[in-house]
Amino acid sequence: MIDSIKDVAITGGTHGNELTGVHLVKHWLSHPAEVQRDSFSTELHLTNPKANKEVRRYIDQDLNRQFNIEDLKNPELQGYEQQRAKSLDALLGPKENPRIDFIIDMHTTTANMGMSLIFNSSDPLVIGMAFYIKQKMPHATLFYNPSDRLEDNFLTSIGRLNGLLIEVGPIAQGLLNYQVYFDTHTAVMHALDYLQQRNKGLPLNLPAQMEGYQFTKKIPLPENTEGEITAMVHPNLQDKDYHAIKPGDPLFITMAGETIVYEGEQMVYGAFINEAAYYDQNIGLSFMEKINITLQDSNL
Amino acid sequence: MIDSIKDVAITGGTHGNELTGVHLVKHWLSHPAEVQRDSFSTELHLTNPKANKEVRRYIDQDLNRQFNIEDLKNPELQGYEQQRAKSLDALLGPKENPRIDFIIDMHTTTANMGMSLIFNSSDPLVIGMAFYIKQKMPHATLFYNPSDRLEDNFLTSIGRLNGLLIEVGPIAQGLLNYQVYFDTHTAVMHALDYLQQRNKGLPLNLPAQMEGYQFTKKIPLPENTEGEITAMVHPNLQDKDYHAIKPGDPLFITMAGETIVYEGEQMVYGAFINEAAYYDQNIGLSFMEKINITLQDSNL
Repeated sequence: MIDSIKDVAITGGTHGNELTGVHLVKHWLSHPAEVQRDSFSTELHLTNPKANKEVRRYIDQDLNRQFNIEDLKNPELQGYEQQRAKSLDALLGPKENPRIDFIIDMHTTTANMGMSLIFNSSDPLVIGMAFYIKQKMPHATLFYNPSDRLEDNFLTSIGRLNGLLIEVGPIAQGLLNYQVYFDTHTAVMHALDYLQQRNKGLPLNLPAQMEGYQFTKKIPLPENTEGEITAMVHPNLQDKDYHAIKPGDPLFITMAGETIVYEGEQMVYGAFINEAAYYDQNIGLSFMEKINITLQDSNL
Repeated sequence: MIDSIKDVAITGGTHGNELTGVHLVKHWLSHPAEVQRDSFSTELHLTNPKANKEVRRYIDQDLNRQFNIEDLKNPELQGYEQQRAKSLDALLGPKENPRIDFIIDMHTTTANMGMSLIFNSSDPLVIGMAFYIKQKMPHATLFYNPSDRLEDNFLTSIGRLNGLLIEVGPIAQGLLNYQVYFDTHTAVMHALDYLQQRNKGLPLNLPAQMEGYQFTKKIPLPENTEGEITAMVHPNLQDKDYHAIKPGDPLFITMAGETIVYEGEQMVYGAFINEAAYYDQNIGLSFMEKINITLQDSNL
């Protein structure tokens, strides 16, 4: 745990076709007062300009999978995003002793995930931020995957604390939607306000526990021997992110209209249901489990 | 007007990231009976395989703007889609004396346009098809832009009659949605059934007139002197395709939250509202006018 946050970075366009973060970064570059707080400095960065210019998720690799310590140190990884990761590590890190304390990375999804707060750190400062934002935005969902920061491959992991990924949907790639833009703006404001209050030692009145979801596994779309998908997300499952999936519930429907059900024995929850970006690996959704997340120092 | 239809082509993937048509073509290639009718032959074609492989709308140019007669005859136009257009013209046309009588081209949009039947021909056979489908699918919208077939730049225009473009949304690019897939499948079935009944001289019982919409102009998103957009579609307008826009109604909202209203004097209707594909030209929506479409030989 660290005592105070001195340097914050807000990043957008890590996936080049997720325009909300790109335009928020540009907006704040011309309206810097909105992201300034007197107890820390805030930087703004567009992290994948070439992919953004081409309105593609990535040029060579998914940038938001390139930040584990081994890959950052591997000089043979020279794809465009692998190079961008090394540049961002030099700019914001280096990962083993980072200059930036906290990174807020803005994303969107084609899935109906609403305002999802994705955080991979068990540090009370990070959990507290997620709890704080959810108190202000009760429709938000906590998406919690504790990981070893050095092993983590997200951009947020090159900060001193593994930071916050804001994931909002549904929205198509390559466009803006005011509600998504406005919600993302609001969540970032709350994140900065939280850091300010925490730095100043002001009472935060956070609960000791909140409900959230933890990733368990990715579920592939059915495919044929040539690797082509043969089914799509079932209409009963479409848009039902964070709803329960019970044994026997429909998961997929083939191109010819036959339903494929969930054959597991335990109730699960879906997320990233029908995310366009995951079609490159024929992934249909993620299975999640519902969890209780505990905040150690909620009296702060 | 031509007496009967002998050769039909169903095309998909003209825009490489609109996967619905791609997977319907693949489905019908393995289930050909669904598209067979005994009074004509049906061909299936994936029209832009390279863009489809890269899950992009196009490689070099929008393929569905490359089919006017001058461009097809211009040997200097050698971009990927310009070459594809010439190949498709050789395969399905040639435009001045086509082998294929009727092309049904399947598209999707990120706009909330539902089942839109886009047709550019005033031939009673084509108008009759749109009326027939709308009778079977009352939620469909007729989108009618009569044009000179040789001047028209759509793929559908290289058939003997300027055919039917099926445009379904909202759906993000790069994914499948069962409802969109199923609706498109249904509309194509009705189109084929119509041609079969017409070929056989069976009574169609079509109305003499139906309501539709005609394109009037494209409305750009506000932009700055560097050509970057400074506003997005207003939340009151988002998803309101084919609704009335009255003088003073909100059109856009700036990144800073200021509303920009419609300053025209006539009521209009919106379509292609917030279509991702049109961000490459900073187009926010199309203005349409509501029209009555008349069918000359409705007693057929």
